[in-house]
Amino acid sequence: MTAFFEGIAPLAYAPDAGDDLAFRHYNPDEIVLGKRMEDHLRFAVAWWHSFAWEGGDPFGGRTFERPWFGSTMDLAKLKADVAFEMFAILGQPFFCFHDVDIRPEGADFAENTRNLEEIVDYIGEKMAAGGPKLLWGTANLFSHRRFMSGAATNPDPDVFAFGAATVKTCMDATHKLGGANYVLWGGREGYETLLNTDLGRESEQMGRFLSMVVEYKHKIGFDGTILIEPKPQEPTKHQYDYDVSTVYGTLKRFGLENEVKVNIEQGHAILAGHSFEHEIATAAALGIFGSIDMNRNDYQSGWDTDQFPNNVPEVALAYYEILRAGGYTTGGTNFDSKLRRQSLDPADLIAAHAGAMDVCARGLKAAAAMLEDGGLETRRAARYAGWDSVEAQEMLTSGTLESIAERVTREAINPAPVSGQQERLENWVNRFV
Amino acid sequence: MTAFFEGIAPLAYAPDAGDDLAFRHYNPDEIVLGKRMEDHLRFAVAWWHSFAWEGGDPFGGRTFERPWFGSTMDLAKLKADVAFEMFAILGQPFFCFHDVDIRPEGADFAENTRNLEEIVDYIGEKMAAGGPKLLWGTANLFSHRRFMSGAATNPDPDVFAFGAATVKTCMDATHKLGGANYVLWGGREGYETLLNTDLGRESEQMGRFLSMVVEYKHKIGFDGTILIEPKPQEPTKHQYDYDVSTVYGTLKRFGLENEVKVNIEQGHAILAGHSFEHEIATAAALGIFGSIDMNRNDYQSGWDTDQFPNNVPEVALAYYEILRAGGYTTGGTNFDSKLRRQSLDPADLIAAHAGAMDVCARGLKAAAAMLEDGGLETRRAARYAGWDSVEAQEMLTSGTLESIAERVTREAINPAPVSGQQERLENWVNRFV
Amino acid sequence: MTAFFEGIAPLAYAPDAGDDLAFRHYNPDEIVLGKRMEDHLRFAVAWWHSFAWEGGDPFGGRTFERPWFGSTMDLAKLKADVAFEMFAILGQPFFCFHDVDIRPEGADFAENTRNLEEIVDYIGEKMAAGGPKLLWGTANLFSHRRFMSGAATNPDPDVFAFGAATVKTCMDATHKLGGANYVLWGGREGYETLLNTDLGRESEQMGRFLSMVVEYKHKIGFDGTILIEPKPQEPTKHQYDYDVSTVYGTLKRFGLENEVKVNIEQGHAILAGHSFEHEIATAAALGIFGSIDMNRNDYQSGWDTDQFPNNVPEVALAYYEILRAGGYTTGGTNFDSKLRRQSLDPADLIAAHAGAMDVCARGLKAAAAMLEDGGLETRRAARYAGWDSVEAQEMLTSGTLESIAERVTREAINPAPVSGQQERLENWVNRFV
Amino acid sequence: MTAFFEGIAPLAYAPDAGDDLAFRHYNPDEIVLGKRMEDHLRFAVAWWHSFAWEGGDPFGGRTFERPWFGSTMDLAKLKADVAFEMFAILGQPFFCFHDVDIRPEGADFAENTRNLEEIVDYIGEKMAAGGPKLLWGTANLFSHRRFMSGAATNPDPDVFAFGAATVKTCMDATHKLGGANYVLWGGREGYETLLNTDLGRESEQMGRFLSMVVEYKHKIGFDGTILIEPKPQEPTKHQYDYDVSTVYGTLKRFGLENEVKVNIEQGHAILAGHSFEHEIATAAALGIFGSIDMNRNDYQSGWDTDQFPNNVPEVALAYYEILRAGGYTTGGTNFDSKLRRQSLDPADLIAAHAGAMDVCARGLKAAAAMLEDGGLETRRAARYAGWDSVEAQEMLTSGTLESIAERVTREAINPAPVSGQQERLENWVNRFV
Repeated sequence: MTAFFEGIAPLAYAPDAGDDLAFRHYNPDEIVLGKRMEDHLRFAVAWWHSFAWEGGDPFGGRTFERPWFGSTMDLAKLKADVAFEMFAILGQPFFCFHDVDIRPEGADFAENTRNLEEIVDYIGEKMAAGGPKLLWGTANLFSHRRFMSGAATNPDPDVFAFGAATVKTCMDATHKLGGANYVLWGGREGYETLLNTDLGRESEQMGRFLSMVVEYKHKIGFDGTILIEPKPQEPTKHQYDYDVSTVYGTLKRFGLENEVKVNIEQGHAILAGHSFEHEIATAAALGIFGSIDMNRNDYQSGWDTDQFPNNVPEVALAYYEILRAGGYTTGGTNFDSKLRRQSLDPADLIAAHAGAMDVCARGLKAAAAMLEDGGLETRRAARYAGWDSVEAQEMLTSGTLESIAERVTREAINPAPVSGQQERLENWVNRFV
Repeated sequence: MTAFFEGIAPLAYAPDAGDDLAFRHYNPDEIVLGKRMEDHLRFAVAWWHSFAWEGGDPFGGRTFERPWFGSTMDLAKLKADVAFEMFAILGQPFFCFHDVDIRPEGADFAENTRNLEEIVDYIGEKMAAGGPKLLWGTANLFSHRRFMSGAATNPDPDVFAFGAATVKTCMDATHKLGGANYVLWGGREGYETLLNTDLGRESEQMGRFLSMVVEYKHKIGFDGTILIEPKPQEPTKHQYDYDVSTVYGTLKRFGLENEVKVNIEQGHAILAGHSFEHEIATAAALGIFGSIDMNRNDYQSGWDTDQFPNNVPEVALAYYEILRAGGYTTGGTNFDSKLRRQSLDPADLIAAHAGAMDVCARGLKAAAAMLEDGGLETRRAARYAGWDSVEAQEMLTSGTLESIAERVTREAINPAPVSGQQERLENWVNRFV
Repeated sequence: MTAFFEGIAPLAYAPDAGDDLAFRHYNPDEIVLGKRMEDHLRFAVAWWHSFAWEGGDPFGGRTFERPWFGSTMDLAKLKADVAFEMFAILGQPFFCFHDVDIRPEGADFAENTRNLEEIVDYIGEKMAAGGPKLLWGTANLFSHRRFMSGAATNPDPDVFAFGAATVKTCMDATHKLGGANYVLWGGREGYETLLNTDLGRESEQMGRFLSMVVEYKHKIGFDGTILIEPKPQEPTKHQYDYDVSTVYGTLKRFGLENEVKVNIEQGHAILAGHSFEHEIATAAALGIFGSIDMNRNDYQSGWDTDQFPNNVPEVALAYYEILRAGGYTTGGTNFDSKLRRQSLDPADLIAAHAGAMDVCARGLKAAAAMLEDGGLETRRAARYAGWDSVEAQEMLTSGTLESIAERVTREAINPAPVSGQQERLENWVNRFV
Repeated sequence: MTAFFEGIAPLAYAPDAGDDLAFRHYNPDEIVLGKRMEDHLRFAVAWWHSFAWEGGDPFGGRTFERPWFGSTMDLAKLKADVAFEMFAILGQPFFCFHDVDIRPEGADFAENTRNLEEIVDYIGEKMAAGGPKLLWGTANLFSHRRFMSGAATNPDPDVFAFGAATVKTCMDATHKLGGANYVLWGGREGYETLLNTDLGRESEQMGRFLSMVVEYKHKIGFDGTILIEPKPQEPTKHQYDYDVSTVYGTLKRFGLENEVKVNIEQGHAILAGHSFEHEIATAAALGIFGSIDMNRNDYQSGWDTDQFPNNVPEVALAYYEILRAGGYTTGGTNFDSKLRRQSLDPADLIAAHAGAMDVCARGLKAAAAMLEDGGLETRRAARYAGWDSVEAQEMLTSGTLESIAERVTREAINPAPVSGQQERLENWVNRFV
């Protein structure tokens, strides 16, 4: 045992706890809609924000002082030790990582691969000893300067090659560790200026890259889900995987809409001008909902703040859409959240996750209660009930503008509007949250 | 002749004109890249903002005093008279309209249709007498209270029917007047709250509606282009045709990507978080570029301000993408622009258009010069030149993650980044604008 | 009795009510922090949104059908009748109005004044008969076309004069009806373009106008508070009373910081880039907190949506700052909220207010509990405790850069940062909301 | 001479230059409005972005490879050598620095001071040998982790002390080098969460800190201007010096409005919801205009992008307001601009500045031509001409609401609105840009 979390015991479910190093609401074994709460929520901790991020921002450097900061294999193992100690305290069922979070950077691809393989074995042993499972792995193709102009969409084919090779090793690692999904976030797949960018070429490159990922998945027998994480911008001015609808168009274009799903982040939804529940509902309607990153943005900041969730009514609406869509299959609730850079203490790391898990538990329970009550779905169905008539269905199957115009004239159709009752629906929701 | 524009003569090309009731830059017959400037720009005036809008905003009512305000057929004809007098002054080759701009609202569909047919005949005579041509017609399916919850995506099938019937009459009108395109802007095809919305149903309705439009186009032999105008929001909280990429996904989903193109507006691009040139370049890359609405938004306002363009460097970048894409086919440059509500005078209406046409002429000439110089395209091509190698092309055709990883290892590929030269490209552009 | 709200009984406090035409949380007589809940919250209904707004937006006209729409004195009285019937159902203690909400527009100032006086008498009788009191009155100096370029800041002194005269009549009306405050919202006191604007002149005009309001208040013995309502923009591109800090600067400049306070709206705070609680806390710190408009904006819309509040945790933070500042004196909680334009039914109007009052009641109770617990204030005080030392206080009183630099050197001061614990504070808040 | 800029000759004014390593428009000795262009524009290069910034962003590290990166005194001198070589190439008259840009970080205040003094002497020698002058110096009180919760507004008085001592040394350095101004940018003077913040205390601390700076300026006989640089947010969620109006309120509150002026940055103006020209015109109207940072933000990005200016019409409007206000006194045009992180080459650094200087030269000449023409000022004066009447002036001096209301009634004042002519004014501007 390292001393990093000294004095912090594994968190218990204790509704009346006096401080925030306990769960007041998250009770893994509690049954919600016939399923254990843990199995609904499928929480994951992100290696990067929790263990790799140093507290820097564009105007200041590292604020955290962690004994594992540095880039040797020994420090990487120390980081893993502390990570699994945190997992033991939180008791969450999953974690996630990028390659660069868990291994030191090598001089070249070969050394990167060796480093990755060694640390994957190390982590695998810890998992075997009772740690959480892997929700997803991913390759960081955006931090190293070689990727400054993108990976799959780089104007230099050698960078494409380096990126593809790296993804192979990360998929291998994810497969070896039994990952439930593999994620691609194209942080620099986009552009800084149209003036030097060939959109046509870059989208072809991106489509091919993604297809190779899907092909390799099948080749190695990885039965997890391939996920794309949309984000509209930042770090680049424009990122190709802008939002759920844009990703759907790309998948459809390359014939991958049945092979790839989306990992939706609240903060990214906000940056794209959408609510979180909009993105989830859109993905569900398009058949590509996969998983979520449950971390909020500040509504007054124009960049990605990656804060722990703290607003139960908002979280409840997100889980409502997830439950309506049938819940997760391979996906889960990942906290892609970082401490504020002023939150220096080890206890901050634990308490932030514990508070977030409680917020999600409250949101889930509220969403489940809304679904069980059925009030919203009853009203929604009633609102569209007119479409069940023969004439209405005919319009959707065999109608033409002419036949419809003829009927409007003949029947003197002149529809009167009906209240949408938005405020009353919001009142109804407020009974549960 | 009405007296509305009394004292304002048809605008001449006069580079040294002392005031702004002349063109200092727009010279219709001037040859640019081998084509008349007028044939490049294909300017259109919008009936609604110029003649139907009364100067109101959410906090105040009508500021304009126009002798044709009201809702009788006589006033509609007076409005048409004044419109064609303005066209004669401006000399632009096209105009555009919604049904409700040109006809008074009737009591029902039948009366609407009669009103429309009568005024279409009236306008047709004016066109025959030498007025401009019709760039596009469209149906206003968002202002009347019956459409408050959408038209194609309304929960009430009777509203869908009323909308479909109305579109039929507007397509007929457009066809009769020889329109070059037919546009659909789904101002209320979206939602105010997810709580009462069935995204799945609504998207199916929307897809069917659009398919019927395409079918009807072929049925009647209309050889113009069907255009969708993307906008992310306003009036609704969320509008389904969010941006070019979203529209592409929808078209692809319903198999309409070869039948329908987009009409892109600068203001709508901005509201969706994109630059105007981004949306044009994206549409061109996806093969769905159609036409533009050349009206800017205020960068500090979060709603659609529909202002006349006034920034030449920005306009030049838009035309650069249009020229790179081969220029317009059926599309054109429509001013979906309204006077500021404090610009009360008839002369404001003329001068605003004249100034905008000059800004576009300058932008076009700058764009043409950039294209002729070729400096940008040479640099762009050089940046991607590495992709011409055999190894690079193989990755795009037959590559796999494994084969690429093997090559990266074997050849010890370790790419060094190359400057993107954004500032120097911007300097280059500034030589022309 | 009119039939408008037929079938809707006065709302009762009924925590287990089956629908939303009751209060589940708002219990006027319940004691919170030693005071009746009604006396804490001081709810007010806004005449304009509830009775004068017709459901229009920039893309569509009236959706509501109200029997009192029109502009005769009889209809104005019918409107007042319905208003007081709604007040009787809601039982809220206050209402607010602009002159144009309650009277028909006359041909000139004299007729406006006569109309206002007549309807004020009519309303006064209703108040005497047991209706709610007046939280504030105000003059609408932005809807009529004469005010299109502002009132106090108009380039035409006659508009300034017309505005000043109108404010006089509205202050008289407010005084006569026993109003607790008088509000100025400068909807068009700002500019559309700097190109035609003289900032220096306009600010002098604005300062003089405001001073005259203060002088007149004292002249007539009105002992209510003069309030300015900040808003950054909309309808104008830029509005001078941008936010609380800007208003403070203006007041200070004209020596009015002890005479005028602010009425803060959540939606306006959001548009200015601030949270609601920020604006309240800032006003409190500057000694100019007055009253609030409790209506939210949609976080994804860039215009003023004026929606009823529905997020309890957010509302709780607002009331927490109000309670910390000592609560309202003459101010209150006004709902400057409008129904969504699709919410057509009379019951929507009642339910929307009832739901909002419940949300506020929950927020108030949570805020009170947080304050009683004291956890946040204890932590806040501890964070700054170092400032209580003699050396620290000396820096604030007699310190100089030199003396401090000398001490830093001598004592080798090299401070270590301390955790800000943001997440743990948020966890703490979540115990109460 | 180092080899860093090898092959790049000092830039000449060469209007027909074939590449962008020359000035096509900036001609220092050209007379504009009776003054040398160089003396109008007063260009300054920023040490931090040009020499200290490494190309990192929140998602990736250093992209630049500069031989002086590191933290020894020798490397700091090498950096200074290269800086002065760049200054010799550009020929701009000024530069600016933070302490941390020019010296390595020491272990404590004493070592910081020694390092600063040594490098200041080194730079002083270079200046004496013919380099540019110092436009302003400033202290970086935001990057080191000790300042993570602010400097002047830190809850720990020792950080306040460390900050004050540091400012003393930076003012000494600025004074010694003959700086024309001293700047304070409060990057972390604000908050991340209201929950742990005492706004009252922090504003008192900030006021005292600022007063001490002013006192020290007079003490040492520094006759430059003290400047505050407003910014609304980033890195903190909320920054106290939000915008020009907010800073004015603070100055007025602490009686410093005649002692301190503002340094306005385009990017910061945009983030605060204002145009650049708005902030300049506001500062001029309030008597606190000082200097500018001429670097633009991307209109679609919600964070500070600090890009070199490239839009001449926008830049022209900024200089128009500066010229109208009488031009700079001690201020100047600082490029607080950084290369895009993909612009790796030394030539990028030169070309970016050269292009920006040309854009400014074009903007200045356009602004001067507009001012000489006088068209805008004539129209502006005419618009307010009504205020010159006796009655109008009386309203501003001795008017009361009563006397004005009496006159409105007596004279039946009923003003008719007059066109604001925004589009025609924009057309007029477009004749010059």
